[in-house]
Amino acid sequence: MEKQDYTFLETFPFWNHLSKEEQNLLKQNTKEQKYPKGYNIHHGSEECAGLLYIKRGFLRAYILSEDGREITLYRLYEGDVCILSAACVLDAITFDVFVDTESPCEIYTVSAPILHDLAEKNIYVEAFNYRMAADRFSDVMWAMQQILFMGMDKRLAIFLVDESAKCKSDEIHLTQEQIARYMGTAREVVSRMVKYFVGEGIVESFRGGIRIVDKKKLKSYLQ
Amino acid sequence: MEKQDYTFLETFPFWNHLSKEEQNLLKQNTKEQKYPKGYNIHHGSEECAGLLYIKRGFLRAYILSEDGREITLYRLYEGDVCILSAACVLDAITFDVFVDTESPCEIYTVSAPILHDLAEKNIYVEAFNYRMAADRFSDVMWAMQQILFMGMDKRLAIFLVDESAKCKSDEIHLTQEQIARYMGTAREVVSRMVKYFVGEGIVESFRGGIRIVDKKKLKSYLQ
Repeated sequence: MEKQDYTFLETFPFWNHLSKEEQNLLKQNTKEQKYPKGYNIHHGSEECAGLLYIKRGFLRAYILSEDGREITLYRLYEGDVCILSAACVLDAITFDVFVDTESPCEIYTVSAPILHDLAEKNIYVEAFNYRMAADRFSDVMWAMQQILFMGMDKRLAIFLVDESAKCKSDEIHLTQEQIARYMGTAREVVSRMVKYFVGEGIVESFRGGIRIVDKKKLKSYLQ
Repeated sequence: MEKQDYTFLETFPFWNHLSKEEQNLLKQNTKEQKYPKGYNIHHGSEECAGLLYIKRGFLRAYILSEDGREITLYRLYEGDVCILSAACVLDAITFDVFVDTESPCEIYTVSAPILHDLAEKNIYVEAFNYRMAADRFSDVMWAMQQILFMGMDKRLAIFLVDESAKCKSDEIHLTQEQIARYMGTAREVVSRMVKYFVGEGIVESFRGGIRIVDKKKLKSYLQ
């Protein structure tokens, strides 16, 4: 059996506040696993995957409506911690998210019951868990504001479809700075929204421009 | 000067983990204030009101778009703690909310700088703050799902049932304009939906409000 590397656990701010026994318990209940792209790691309330630490790859967290609509809440990358997959550990978190891999992933999973026990006994673990949740809260608020207020997704989609039609090309040779100016918004807003579209597999970003790779999906934003 | 009652501070889970000096510091930097209905207590990023504890009355937290649209995130009632008005204290919270009184209120405010200092020195205070934030995270996710996923009929039904329960009356004294603002939608949308409910014999509309006439039918929309 391959020896596992638990160095990441030692970077958690609560690590030095655990007893030797607790540190060992945590290591013994952390396992490394590989997942293919598009794998559903955490499935709402049906089970509690536990705390995830991304060694390699990236994840997408989303909510699902009854009729199957998805809203992407945020993405997590190498070195990030996914805490909402351990929602069962956090009394104050009463909603469910779904978490999928978006690339082949190597992930450490800290068992939910162990995390629960540690958080009950050790205030540093509890504080860490809720602090991680607050980080995601900020991400979700950003996504919510984009979707509800700005319609920035729709506005950017309209702009890209129009430009593409105008140039008769899927490649739009405009910098994000220029796009922002045309759209009357800030470069940072365009930049984050482009990143979101890239993440959704709708466009690719290249030096000095944007390439539409999934026109159908892009046009779905126009409604 | 009226003697202030700080009993609520002693109910906070971190209280017994504070030194006598810290307890006194907290008391000295907590003030009681009265606000009229409709008063804007916390105004996004412009200032940091601090942690609010509601002695009497209720508050509404919302976000505001650039063009002035409001989305209600949640309401807080007697005995509730408002932590997002102390967002400046929480590094992991990077968004801004607005908080208004919805009735005449008596509110204790714990000064933000003091809360910040205590949270830095005392992990129990930090854990409390983030745990409170996680509670609000759950509220916001609920609101988000209402807005994004649910049909307007269901949303209006939920709103009317909730308001009716809150006021212990079948008459809801809110204009369609106000209802729209609370629901984070346009007045026209509410207006059409109310007209639909009137047509169905579920509600009656009167100047300045709505009367529920068929509660059973209204509640059938909640499923």
